[in-house]
Amino acid sequence: MSDSPDVVISPSKAAARIRAAAVDAFASAGYGGTTTRDIAARLDMSPAAMYPHYRSKEELLFAISYEGHTEALKVVEGADRPGEEPSVRLQELISTFASWQAGHHSLARVVQYELTALTPEHYRTVVALRRSTTRVVREVVDAGVQSGDFTIPDAEGVTLALMSLCVDVCRWFPAGNYTNPEDIGKLYGDLALRMVGAA
Amino acid sequence: MSDSPDVVISPSKAAARIRAAAVDAFASAGYGGTTTRDIAARLDMSPAAMYPHYRSKEELLFAISYEGHTEALKVVEGADRPGEEPSVRLQELISTFASWQAGHHSLARVVQYELTALTPEHYRTVVALRRSTTRVVREVVDAGVQSGDFTIPDAEGVTLALMSLCVDVCRWFPAGNYTNPEDIGKLYGDLALRMVGAA
Repeated sequence: MSDSPDVVISPSKAAARIRAAAVDAFASAGYGGTTTRDIAARLDMSPAAMYPHYRSKEELLFAISYEGHTEALKVVEGADRPGEEPSVRLQELISTFASWQAGHHSLARVVQYELTALTPEHYRTVVALRRSTTRVVREVVDAGVQSGDFTIPDAEGVTLALMSLCVDVCRWFPAGNYTNPEDIGKLYGDLALRMVGAA
Repeated sequence: MSDSPDVVISPSKAAARIRAAAVDAFASAGYGGTTTRDIAARLDMSPAAMYPHYRSKEELLFAISYEGHTEALKVVEGADRPGEEPSVRLQELISTFASWQAGHHSLARVVQYELTALTPEHYRTVVALRRSTTRVVREVVDAGVQSGDFTIPDAEGVTLALMSLCVDVCRWFPAGNYTNPEDIGKLYGDLALRMVGAA
């Protein structure tokens, strides 16, 4: 299990500070525009002192992406209530995921937009986590179609749109009157029910 | 009018080739990870030969962003049919905008995700274009509310969500069975009607 969370993310406080500084650096200058030296400088560290934690900028991006996607998956899985009706489940899932994207928009931006800078192996690992998150939503969509609660043109397309709507929150949040993650959650939970044609 | 399209974008064929090479370079390495030298190298040009067209990487990003946002605005304005019912107008607008984002996803990614690298003045110019695009959609949403065709929780929030849904297409397209811009347009036009609770 070379990809177990502890190995990839590194559980020390020092490593967490490095990841936080890297998120800030990537968010302001982009991954391509940031050097490990820039990140170390934000922490008054030497690049050599960072090396035992993360041996390269890509390894650091992988740790951040892995952590962010693992966290998103946990949040979505934690919000699902398999005993409830599909409408209740979907509203809660989408509302929670959209709020989370709003509340963590700097992290989410790095995690979503810099993926292509990962090595192919790391990319596959992160994409698998993302697929698991999508699967939670897809299962609820399918459950609603089966029970007759949802009427949709295409389960794949509607799931794609629901995920896309939530993910894109990190790009624009905050905007206008939408400055509170909870308000976005409420709005998006309602929109999700409309999108699936909930009875 | 220092911001007239011709001045900003530069209408020559050579300039168009430079912008296309820059979009490819930014799309693969990010704006921060690309130098003007990288862009010139893609065209077998010297950086000095690029200078008369674009004096800096930021100026080139501005030209690309300005062109992309102007084009998006034109496409959305061109798709609006003020004589029709709000439902017909909204479906056509969202369908056209979503297809366009799918068909131009590399350009759209640069245009959407690298905005923060612009100078404050250039950023304001581009954001004004984006606001004009949003306004076209907002007017149709408001028209539908006024006519009683649409029932929505909040016009600002629903417009934000509609725009967000379309913009994010450039991030994930293509995916799974959705590899054709027209299919996305069709799906999203239908979802838009659901989101506004069209009668």
